[in-house]
Amino acid sequence: MELKFEDAKALAVEILTSRGMRPDYAGIVADHLIDAAIAGHAFAGLPRVLALVEALEKKPPARPVTIVREDSISAVIDGGDNNGYVTSVIGVDKAIDLAKGSGVGIVGVRNTWFSGRLAYYVERAARLDLVAFHTASSTARVAPYGGIDALFGTNPIALAFPGKDGPLVIDLGTSAATWGELLLRKRTGRKLDPGMAVDVQGQPTDDAAAGLDGAILPWGGPRGGALSLAVQVLGVLAGGNTIVKDVSDYGFFFFVFNPELLMPINQFKTRAEELLDIVRTSRPGLGAERVRIPGASSLLRRAQGQVRGTLTVDDKVYAALQNLRPQS
Amino acid sequence: MELKFEDAKALAVEILTSRGMRPDYAGIVADHLIDAAIAGHAFAGLPRVLALVEALEKKPPARPVTIVREDSISAVIDGGDNNGYVTSVIGVDKAIDLAKGSGVGIVGVRNTWFSGRLAYYVERAARLDLVAFHTASSTARVAPYGGIDALFGTNPIALAFPGKDGPLVIDLGTSAATWGELLLRKRTGRKLDPGMAVDVQGQPTDDAAAGLDGAILPWGGPRGGALSLAVQVLGVLAGGNTIVKDVSDYGFFFFVFNPELLMPINQFKTRAEELLDIVRTSRPGLGAERVRIPGASSLLRRAQGQVRGTLTVDDKVYAALQNLRPQS
Repeated sequence: MELKFEDAKALAVEILTSRGMRPDYAGIVADHLIDAAIAGHAFAGLPRVLALVEALEKKPPARPVTIVREDSISAVIDGGDNNGYVTSVIGVDKAIDLAKGSGVGIVGVRNTWFSGRLAYYVERAARLDLVAFHTASSTARVAPYGGIDALFGTNPIALAFPGKDGPLVIDLGTSAATWGELLLRKRTGRKLDPGMAVDVQGQPTDDAAAGLDGAILPWGGPRGGALSLAVQVLGVLAGGNTIVKDVSDYGFFFFVFNPELLMPINQFKTRAEELLDIVRTSRPGLGAERVRIPGASSLLRRAQGQVRGTLTVDDKVYAALQNLRPQS
Repeated sequence: MELKFEDAKALAVEILTSRGMRPDYAGIVADHLIDAAIAGHAFAGLPRVLALVEALEKKPPARPVTIVREDSISAVIDGGDNNGYVTSVIGVDKAIDLAKGSGVGIVGVRNTWFSGRLAYYVERAARLDLVAFHTASSTARVAPYGGIDALFGTNPIALAFPGKDGPLVIDLGTSAATWGELLLRKRTGRKLDPGMAVDVQGQPTDDAAAGLDGAILPWGGPRGGALSLAVQVLGVLAGGNTIVKDVSDYGFFFFVFNPELLMPINQFKTRAEELLDIVRTSRPGLGAERVRIPGASSLLRRAQGQVRGTLTVDDKVYAALQNLRPQS
């Protein structure tokens, strides 16, 4: 069904606050989920309220987010076991403030869980004419390259650059599949692709349930595996757990800087746009209509969604959300 | 044949200075090539002197490397058209100095060419208890994801972290193959693997000569392609060309920071080592003896090479180098 943004937000906020989340924090989460939904990432939209409720019901109440230490170029943030949708906004906004003041902001966020779409956070910086780099470690579900034990998170990496026609946003996971993809395939009975996962004995499997019990494989062979490890180490440096056994103690790393340290912003935007134009108008490969810029279709879908003012929610998800309303 | 380090260095310095390179710069290049050779990257060792001479003979004399602007957290360096083996050492050492003083160093290097092994530069920072991130754009030989025109360089990314038993060094190219690999396969008549390259019409090819005329493909599908683009954009921000048509105007980006901004160094090293130990002792996949840490075998081979004090040079390469000596 189609939901107006304000109705979707009110529904998410009502459910999340009834599980103890602060109203302002619930609003931050809802805005993120609506943004993800209209950018075309349906699974990262309202269905995440179900996963949040499940996690919240197992946890003691969150404590306030606190700044552990801070100087003009860096900050360490204790997330107080609040979810990452909230702590990541606080983290990137702190990095943005530092970068606006000193030119650079390096921020680590600890004591938090879930991470949302990393694109959402780095884009905030790029829209303010800053460059951002961000990584997040997460629950151990992915094997290291060459291994079969679930040690790493799906460990995404995101980068964003200010641009003439909006930011350039790059956001990639370092696992062959997401946890959500495996859950979806289990539910729908669809087989896994080769190279996605191994079972608990470490044998390759095309069965999603077996993969969920075993380990997801890293993306991109030894190189992807190396990046996955780098995200895990940055997570440790940010104060996350070495191996994240539960839905807690993720480690988020933010690096935001003012590109004017290296080049006047308008010159950078002009030259970056020149580069993107050359890419866009270059010859496409077999079967492709044109060469696409990463993230561009998400940005376009979102712009269209904002005009429409509504988002699509799966009927079953909507029914499940109604069941979670406190008065029901 | 086996060459003692001092003889290899003297030979490289003699040849490079005879083509106009400053003796101290030639020494920096020679040290890098010897390090690459003993780390097991034979092609990145003395054979590179041949490529350097070819490039130097086409170029006007280099100008001095200059600092265009600098503050306590960043610097812009004009490489004066010196080669990247030299300007990258100057660039990373500047970033290290800044990070030692202020906590962070963001450095862009422009007006330079070739880049060497990025691992070599980031490792310098990690050995001084700093974290380093480094990218390099380079000559247009790689298609953007979904395209067939050679627009990007092989665009490597490197990261290094200080560690208890030496640094953790991650260094990866974002192209399906290196230019050197294609040259080698052309010379030896070996076919290209599927997905490595397209010919000048954009058709997949297994012929190395056709691939050299066409374009190398990006590594890692859309995600690898996105990283390749990010390196190109960081190269632009560093002052490199949008599309690097020649052997000049590469753009190098360095980000070095003190991990103590986020966590006491000994705590970080202990926890990172804990993580690496868990990875090393986790169950290996089918056919693997154990799970390996990226870069570890390079570091081990180099340590063994340093004890040996000699490196292996291909006899034909050695003969070619002898031919380049000024007195011959």
